[in-house]
Amino acid sequence: DSLTQIQYDTIYNVFSLVIASQLFTSIFLVISLPRVLPRYRQALTVAAVVCGIAAYHYFRIFNSFTEAFVTEAVGGRGDYVQVAGASFNEGYRYVDWLLTVPLLLLELVAVLALARKVQSSLLKRLIPAAALMIALGYPGEMASDNLTRGIFGLLSSVPFAYILYVLFVELTRSLARQPATVRKTISLLRLLLLATWGVYPIAYLLPGLGIDGSDAWVGLQIGYSVADILAKCLYALIIFRIARMKSFSDD
Amino acid sequence: DSLTQIQYDTIYNVFSLVIASQLFTSIFLVISLPRVLPRYRQALTVAAVVCGIAAYHYFRIFNSFTEAFVTEAVGGRGDYVQVAGASFNEGYRYVDWLLTVPLLLLELVAVLALARKVQSSLLKRLIPAAALMIALGYPGEMASDNLTRGIFGLLSSVPFAYILYVLFVELTRSLARQPATVRKTISLLRLLLLATWGVYPIAYLLPGLGIDGSDAWVGLQIGYSVADILAKCLYALIIFRIARMKSFSDD
Ligand SMILES: CC1=C(/C=C/C(C)=C/C=C/C(C)=C/C=O)C(C)(C)CCC1
Ligand SMILES: CC1=C(/C=C/C(C)=C/C=C/C(C)=C/C=O)C(C)(C)CCC1
Repeated sequence: DSLTQIQYDTIYNVFSLVIASQLFTSIFLVISLPRVLPRYRQALTVAAVVCGIAAYHYFRIFNSFTEAFVTEAVGGRGDYVQVAGASFNEGYRYVDWLLTVPLLLLELVAVLALARKVQSSLLKRLIPAAALMIALGYPGEMASDNLTRGIFGLLSSVPFAYILYVLFVELTRSLARQPATVRKTISLLRLLLLATWGVYPIAYLLPGLGIDGSDAWVGLQIGYSVADILAKCLYALIIFRIARMKSFSDD
Repeated sequence: DSLTQIQYDTIYNVFSLVIASQLFTSIFLVISLPRVLPRYRQALTVAAVVCGIAAYHYFRIFNSFTEAFVTEAVGGRGDYVQVAGASFNEGYRYVDWLLTVPLLLLELVAVLALARKVQSSLLKRLIPAAALMIALGYPGEMASDNLTRGIFGLLSSVPFAYILYVLFVELTRSLARQPATVRKTISLLRLLLLATWGVYPIAYLLPGLGIDGSDAWVGLQIGYSVADILAKCLYALIIFRIARMKSFSDD
């Protein structure tokens, strides 16, 4: 496949946007750590680590992209084609998710500061389910045929559905015990989670729907990138806001 | 030997997973240092350094791998063969272990916060034994014949057995003096140590057992990598948990 200069430049700049967003959200959170009560620092620390991990992977994704697509046109004003001997490694996303998706759930549970028992019961179910969801998606994404892709996508949807069930049915009970001022923000956070996490399985389906070619691929990369900014950076900033609000109301 | 694209991509992504895991566990520990009592900071600092050292070595291992195996296929969609003039350096692992294995034992002893005398008596025996174990394994790993490999493997097993003896017989007495809440977590840590450290001598034996070919080599690299994540990152997180629990119960 080949990319026009506009397509190439767009992806190039979007990837760089993700690096800047993740890296500096991470730095912001580390600097802001002393501004919340100690009991909320676990959530912010994990959020900082998540954004740091994402920054690392987008550095890698960016380099993988610029090494895999080249042009011979002077000043780069031409089509970009795939080079011999290098590939764009889609796998970085799965390595990233394998680490960050369980941690995003940990952030959510940590910022609620529930009783220790409730916390560990939630995490014992959410974290393995998240790891399983990503691990099952990987062979599907790497497969070259749509059947394998479909089967692993379906398998991966089972833990996905389970995670949503735990977050939207079980967690609702714990919400009642949160201070009234933050209850709305927590609902907002959960909504953001649903809206952004839903993007990933939809993007995964695109190649199977016969939507292909370079436009679809460009759309996919931009979709994943924007979803990653919302699901990690914006999510972290809302977590920070909840931690600040709870720090005030606990005081 | 040559690798298929799936084998190459799998190792590539696993190595990157190890880099991300080690690097960000290290950063997490440094950020979290103020969250435990000063007497437990030695253990966390050492854990952070261990994961940092491992991140460095996996950067090297990753680069060594991508330089040693190349393909000429467009988009990287083909077999990867060993290039002329570059080798995959298995030695990085031994350099890493020579530094990190003694430090992992130091972490364990430090988090127990035993009497100063007991600590130094344990370390005076564990650290030289660990260094000797790795130093004796290196010539065996580098040797091309199975006899040399076997002899040095056997020699290296002597300090290995001694370390296990000290950890499981002598340390058990000190465990009785730990707060009840953390005793279970410490036992868990020791079990993790036994389960993960046991992977290394088994992997070492594989070539001697006639199991060869690229599948075995891929399995070996994945096995070492996963063991390194468990023996350093998960181990460090359990150390962190012990330090947090003890900080609460001492307070
Ligand atoms: C259900 C499903 C998937 C779900 C992926 C999700 C939910 C990813 C979330 C990623 C996040 C939140 C990243 C970090 O910001 C896969 C693996 C695409 C495979 C197809 C089925
Ligand atoms: C007994 C034995 C070995 C033991 C190696 C061990 C126990 C390594 C542990 C490494 C760790 C814990 C790494 C860091 O995470 C060797 C050297 C393979 C040589 C064969 C005999």
